[in-house]
Amino acid sequence: MTSRWTRAQDLARSRSVGALLITPGADLRYLTGYHAKPLERLTCLVVPADGDPVLVAPALERAAAEASGVEVEIATFGETDDPYALVGSLLPADAVVAVDNQMWAERVLAFQRRFADVRLAGPLLAELRMRKDPHEVAALRDAGAAIDRVHQRMGEWLRPGRTEREVGADIGRAILEEGHEQVDFVIVGSGPNGASPHHEVSDRVIQEGDPVVVDIGGTNAAGYCSDCTRNYLAGGTAPREYLDAYAVLEEAQQVQREHARPGVTAESVDAVGRQVLADAGLGDLFIHRTGHGIGTETHEEPYIVEGNELVLEPGMAFSIEPGVYLEGRYGARIEDIAVCTDDGLEVLNNTSRSLTVL
Amino acid sequence: MTSRWTRAQDLARSRSVGALLITPGADLRYLTGYHAKPLERLTCLVVPADGDPVLVAPALERAAAEASGVEVEIATFGETDDPYALVGSLLPADAVVAVDNQMWAERVLAFQRRFADVRLAGPLLAELRMRKDPHEVAALRDAGAAIDRVHQRMGEWLRPGRTEREVGADIGRAILEEGHEQVDFVIVGSGPNGASPHHEVSDRVIQEGDPVVVDIGGTNAAGYCSDCTRNYLAGGTAPREYLDAYAVLEEAQQVQREHARPGVTAESVDAVGRQVLADAGLGDLFIHRTGHGIGTETHEEPYIVEGNELVLEPGMAFSIEPGVYLEGRYGARIEDIAVCTDDGLEVLNNTSRSLTVL
Repeated sequence: MTSRWTRAQDLARSRSVGALLITPGADLRYLTGYHAKPLERLTCLVVPADGDPVLVAPALERAAAEASGVEVEIATFGETDDPYALVGSLLPADAVVAVDNQMWAERVLAFQRRFADVRLAGPLLAELRMRKDPHEVAALRDAGAAIDRVHQRMGEWLRPGRTEREVGADIGRAILEEGHEQVDFVIVGSGPNGASPHHEVSDRVIQEGDPVVVDIGGTNAAGYCSDCTRNYLAGGTAPREYLDAYAVLEEAQQVQREHARPGVTAESVDAVGRQVLADAGLGDLFIHRTGHGIGTETHEEPYIVEGNELVLEPGMAFSIEPGVYLEGRYGARIEDIAVCTDDGLEVLNNTSRSLTVL
Repeated sequence: MTSRWTRAQDLARSRSVGALLITPGADLRYLTGYHAKPLERLTCLVVPADGDPVLVAPALERAAAEASGVEVEIATFGETDDPYALVGSLLPADAVVAVDNQMWAERVLAFQRRFADVRLAGPLLAELRMRKDPHEVAALRDAGAAIDRVHQRMGEWLRPGRTEREVGADIGRAILEEGHEQVDFVIVGSGPNGASPHHEVSDRVIQEGDPVVVDIGGTNAAGYCSDCTRNYLAGGTAPREYLDAYAVLEEAQQVQREHARPGVTAESVDAVGRQVLADAGLGDLFIHRTGHGIGTETHEEPYIVEGNELVLEPGMAFSIEPGVYLEGRYGARIEDIAVCTDDGLEVLNNTSRSLTVL
């Protein structure tokens, strides 16, 4: 972890930022390995641009912080002490500080009262977090293989007559069994529910012939996330129109996988898939961006979306998940996590992308 | 829910706040019933001091928001639209806005660029959330009974030779089985691990004669939290010194329960328990505040801590959880959730507070 905050310090100096202030969340875990709970008592990693980082933490959390193996000095405060004064004592009042993008408002405003200039650390930290090192890629590969094993077992649970919620509960258990520490989300969108990309589960009973979108993910012990969508047919026969759209969607997603690599822009990956769907007259059914970066958060930079001119580099990991949605009838989405290699793309999800009849 | 935001509007007007801006979390759930996921795309309830609230949400989330039964107008934005411009279009640029205390920094700073004055909504919303109505008290009572049932089953899992982690996994399953939708935390602090109040679980094998602190909680379907600590002895005999301290702790917690009622201050509840321990020479071992409010969050206002001169009122719900901690040896903590009635206190946890030998 030392090299991570050393690089963060280099970036801070280059942007005239005097210190990073990082509260519990993905940034703190990335920089220190400490998976701290989001509590009302302040925990805050102070990373000065020059000098050693200090973890400011409640006295009650010292044992937990030490058990996590953080390699920085820990400065604690008692139940009736002011933690902001303690952070303030570590930095000059005219400091330019950069706070993690998800820091709570009550903390942001407290630091604004104490420091001259409060900015976001996100753009700076994204420069680091976006580029996965080989250990991180291995952790994402492990998460991808784990979620693939869950998809391969879908026939154990998904069948007509069961509710989405029942199937979802079984999937949740399997996400843990197959190598995650935490279930992040379970989407079982059957029939018309598949037309809402962020539907989760409902009490709808799955019908024979329903197309079902199953989009699932969790976090593994290393702290890295999985996210994979496959499409199932619960017996019976799907509508012709759906099958035709599905074939185009498969082609769009394949074109995107073949296009994505170091040197192309994030938005171009979105565009090449959108074009395939548009050429088939289905462009209006693809109502969301193509994808999101993934790492210690399910959704992080880089976003694969129109307007993002970022040029992809080796180590960047993201989802490729075009979809088609026909309101009131059905939806379909094919999603893989992929990571840029030195000269191409490694796809981390490898079960069949075709419609799987159960 | 309508009456809640109407009362929030009354408070906003009385404090010269032009609008509340509320992102996903406990405040949003309290005001609308919408249990929204914390996503990178902005979801924000806009509650003007005068006029109707509007939920600004990504187009992708409209179905989820509608399914949650929110009773406000929903204004959506597309994948490449600026959601802050949409919020801005609903309010004058010179508005004084109050944001939820846990709003992410990236949003706080975006709203600061757009509005004249950004404050915290927490103090205003705490006035509402602190005072539970009878439906909320019933939901807390239900959560309390559910966690009591888990404690009553402790003998099924807690015994010498098992690790804290194994016992904790069993407890987690039981928290769900006995009537929660979500496990919030599981602390199994055996022997010396009990001396760290926020220890969770470890691979330590529980030994015969270990005092074990078990502090557990979850959230029920209504969105309300449980939180209860009991102490167990895994067979064998506890040290004399521990048993003596435990007897004083029981007395301190009882004195606090007998003292707490409408009309006394939050800090006085802390003080009366601390005095019992101090009189027995154990004051230095009680290293944290007595308690925290509880509702749609496990920790919320009112805090039962020195310096909080708030006078308790009917409907206020909080934990009473004094503890004694001897570093490297053991700890003990007795915790109940209680709610102020019109003229006294209803305690929502009712299993034995004595040391339970398993």
